[in-house]
Amino acid sequence: MENTSKQRYKKFWKELTHYYDILSLLHWDSEVLMPTGAREERSEQIGQVSSHCHKLFVSAELDEILAELSHDIEKLEDNHEKYRTKRELEVLQKDRARSKKLSASFVEEFSKITNLAYGIWGEAKKDSDFRKFSPTLERIVELSKEKAEAYGYTTERYDALLEDYEAETTSASLNDLFVKLKNSLIPIINQAKSYPSPFRKPIPIENQSTFNQKLPSALGLPSEFSRLDISLHPFSTSLGAKDKRITTRYDESDPVSSIFGVLHETGHALYEFGLGKISDYPSPLTAALSYGMHESQSRLWENQVGRSRAFWEYFFPIMLKDFNIYQYDISFNDFYNFINSVSKSKIRVEADQVTYNLHIILRFEIERELISKDLKVKDLPELWNSKMKDYFDLTIENDSEGVLQDVHWSGGSFGYFPTYTLGNIYSAQMFNAFYNTHQNFWEDVRSRGDFSSLLKWLDKKVHSQGRLYSPAELMKNATGETPDSTYLVKYLKTKIREQE
Amino acid sequence: MENTSKQRYKKFWKELTHYYDILSLLHWDSEVLMPTGAREERSEQIGQVSSHCHKLFVSAELDEILAELSHDIEKLEDNHEKYRTKRELEVLQKDRARSKKLSASFVEEFSKITNLAYGIWGEAKKDSDFRKFSPTLERIVELSKEKAEAYGYTTERYDALLEDYEAETTSASLNDLFVKLKNSLIPIINQAKSYPSPFRKPIPIENQSTFNQKLPSALGLPSEFSRLDISLHPFSTSLGAKDKRITTRYDESDPVSSIFGVLHETGHALYEFGLGKISDYPSPLTAALSYGMHESQSRLWENQVGRSRAFWEYFFPIMLKDFNIYQYDISFNDFYNFINSVSKSKIRVEADQVTYNLHIILRFEIERELISKDLKVKDLPELWNSKMKDYFDLTIENDSEGVLQDVHWSGGSFGYFPTYTLGNIYSAQMFNAFYNTHQNFWEDVRSRGDFSSLLKWLDKKVHSQGRLYSPAELMKNATGETPDSTYLVKYLKTKIREQE
Repeated sequence: MENTSKQRYKKFWKELTHYYDILSLLHWDSEVLMPTGAREERSEQIGQVSSHCHKLFVSAELDEILAELSHDIEKLEDNHEKYRTKRELEVLQKDRARSKKLSASFVEEFSKITNLAYGIWGEAKKDSDFRKFSPTLERIVELSKEKAEAYGYTTERYDALLEDYEAETTSASLNDLFVKLKNSLIPIINQAKSYPSPFRKPIPIENQSTFNQKLPSALGLPSEFSRLDISLHPFSTSLGAKDKRITTRYDESDPVSSIFGVLHETGHALYEFGLGKISDYPSPLTAALSYGMHESQSRLWENQVGRSRAFWEYFFPIMLKDFNIYQYDISFNDFYNFINSVSKSKIRVEADQVTYNLHIILRFEIERELISKDLKVKDLPELWNSKMKDYFDLTIENDSEGVLQDVHWSGGSFGYFPTYTLGNIYSAQMFNAFYNTHQNFWEDVRSRGDFSSLLKWLDKKVHSQGRLYSPAELMKNATGETPDSTYLVKYLKTKIREQE
Repeated sequence: MENTSKQRYKKFWKELTHYYDILSLLHWDSEVLMPTGAREERSEQIGQVSSHCHKLFVSAELDEILAELSHDIEKLEDNHEKYRTKRELEVLQKDRARSKKLSASFVEEFSKITNLAYGIWGEAKKDSDFRKFSPTLERIVELSKEKAEAYGYTTERYDALLEDYEAETTSASLNDLFVKLKNSLIPIINQAKSYPSPFRKPIPIENQSTFNQKLPSALGLPSEFSRLDISLHPFSTSLGAKDKRITTRYDESDPVSSIFGVLHETGHALYEFGLGKISDYPSPLTAALSYGMHESQSRLWENQVGRSRAFWEYFFPIMLKDFNIYQYDISFNDFYNFINSVSKSKIRVEADQVTYNLHIILRFEIERELISKDLKVKDLPELWNSKMKDYFDLTIENDSEGVLQDVHWSGGSFGYFPTYTLGNIYSAQMFNAFYNTHQNFWEDVRSRGDFSSLLKWLDKKVHSQGRLYSPAELMKNATGETPDSTYLVKYLKTKIREQE
């Protein structure tokens, strides 16, 4: 390839990446430590950089650079490099085409109504009255359908929205996965047991933090390139290839929640850190493959690893020491049962690793009806409540514990929910494939807190792959099979069997 | 004025200001909490945004906007608005003209050699060998002379460099101020006494921090719009009109140093906060007037206020409580004498409020000789050492405690040093003028820790004025006189008299 077109392209992409990273810093700072009075000004700064990024991304200059590059690809002799560069251009042009498909006036209206909707949803939830939110949600659904039409699709409208969160995946294939999973989950949930917290006194935040600060580097996220801080909602963000930041939140009466926040966000950060190590970083291919793939990395470390017996055989004594708890004051089994406890609940964000997926499937089914078919917004509460009865045998008493519980729809994020369960499916399937060839893993963890073989495997099979393949292709390459919920069911069944 | 030209101009300026503020966040984060491994990438991000700001600042688009605005000014009927807008354009066009006077190749060479020089200076200082630094410094002086020639000047070359730090001020006027001050300072220093630290045990950082966190808001910096953090060197920065951040550093064996760091940086932040409150913020006139004016605000709160008896009559018991010190374990007088202790020392950054100015005058005299006249770099150590003997009666044993002690010259910052003492002169003169009409101030401080009359005065006379007048004009408007070292001398003499 001619050096000039490639160099010009790389320079352009690096500049754009720096701006995206700066945007992440503006967000991170505002969530973690910015003085409260600076919020409005910060929004303006974020808006300005966002719009600058968008301009660069859809610019005529980039059109020209890509045309040049595209022309030069044909001269490539190395087949892998040719495939890689073609894929890179394809992925990038698809993203750009989507960005250009929505008119400025549409984007403005969508952003305006979803900003308003956030407040209206909050009020409606507080008053537990869906009718207050219903007209706004109707408009958001209408606009989302328009958006899907503008994007275009082959089979059904919801596919077009899914693409924003899980590229190259269809509603029909998701449905196949989820129906099978649902049928297995219901009997598991009916057998599973719930256990109380073994902690008899509050654990000061300082003690929780001492323990938590050890976790990211223990899992393989170098402290030289990362930080752990506190925010209202745990999150993970990338401020550059060598600057990954995670946060958690603390509750003195529930010390376990901050720990699983850290494990979850460390999983996200390890993925981002792996992407940053790819030799041609930054490029459109060295970004996260999909929301589901991102979630698979967080869930894998949070659940497969973080709720395992071996993990806690290593970390339990360290935790007790940091928490200043006498070793006979809390039994390992009580703790282990508690972190793997299962109970039917009405609220998704409070759900355990088993029931969580059923909450998601319920939302997926409803979203699909709303967007692809003719489900009316006004009929949402009834459908929600009847599904809750069917799947969980729970009776929803009011909208705030039912259809109004989540913020997502007020933001028009149709297609986001299914990626949570996709992440769980991917993670169980990956861990199974990894474990088949690394039977010493649990012993390494138990005896030395050594997770390196797993991180190495994930790095090779997932992180270093970036966006080179579709999620389904990546899963096939990594595990030998396309996505299949069998491994998640197997994992959850084992957890339940242990409860006996 | 036509709305369109003014609006276009305001929009442009707001965008530029947001980028400058983003640059400040990138710096702040890197000094306060960024993971160490991210340094190189962060430099690239900073370089990119800096260069984007520079491009906007010297852009043809801004040329055009300003031409339009300039044309519309003549239609203004309100004389004050006419003056203000004319001054705004004048200040801005002068800054832009200077930015355009240096060729890109010159800027690159200057930046390259000063970057290199930082390391070379560090090595030379470590080895206490000026000869190792001398050839590099020679080149920096040569380039600085070239820079001054490119900028242009009326009387002498050093004036052109001064302009970067203290606009509209000449070497000759500075010299008049400083000679008078020097002649008064030497006898004061010879009379003054030194006192030992009254602290008998180290004070944990946590306790120091508890006390320090109370100071900025007590002085009038709202906590809603500011933060106090920790960094290697204390600094203050503005991330927006409503986001002012200050830092200090902690030494358990010297708890006083972190406190004066906070008072100093709060002074800077209060100035910036006041600028952000000006009604047409952001504009070229709502920025700090000069380095000397900025320093006057930090020194005023640090010295005039922070080393006063009334300040500590209010804060001493609070400090003792926060430091967990029993009230009879440390005497108020011992503490007060210590924070006003004077002793001749070789090192500027360790100097007290009296001797500090003599260190600065020495540097000013040398810089002026270097840039405006024929002083050779190789002759610097000899001149330095002889001046130290003359002014302080101290014998410099080696270059690291002499001519090599400061980093400034390695960065080519000729003209920076004098602003430290200008700040002291301005602050004493301002405080004197304020106190003449606010005789209750010390009583307000002593009894209630109430500094509001002073902040209100500074806000009216200094902060709200922005860059509307030259430093000398502002001083005349604020105090009735152009800058005069009499008030600094009077203040220092009173301090020394108290020691008797």
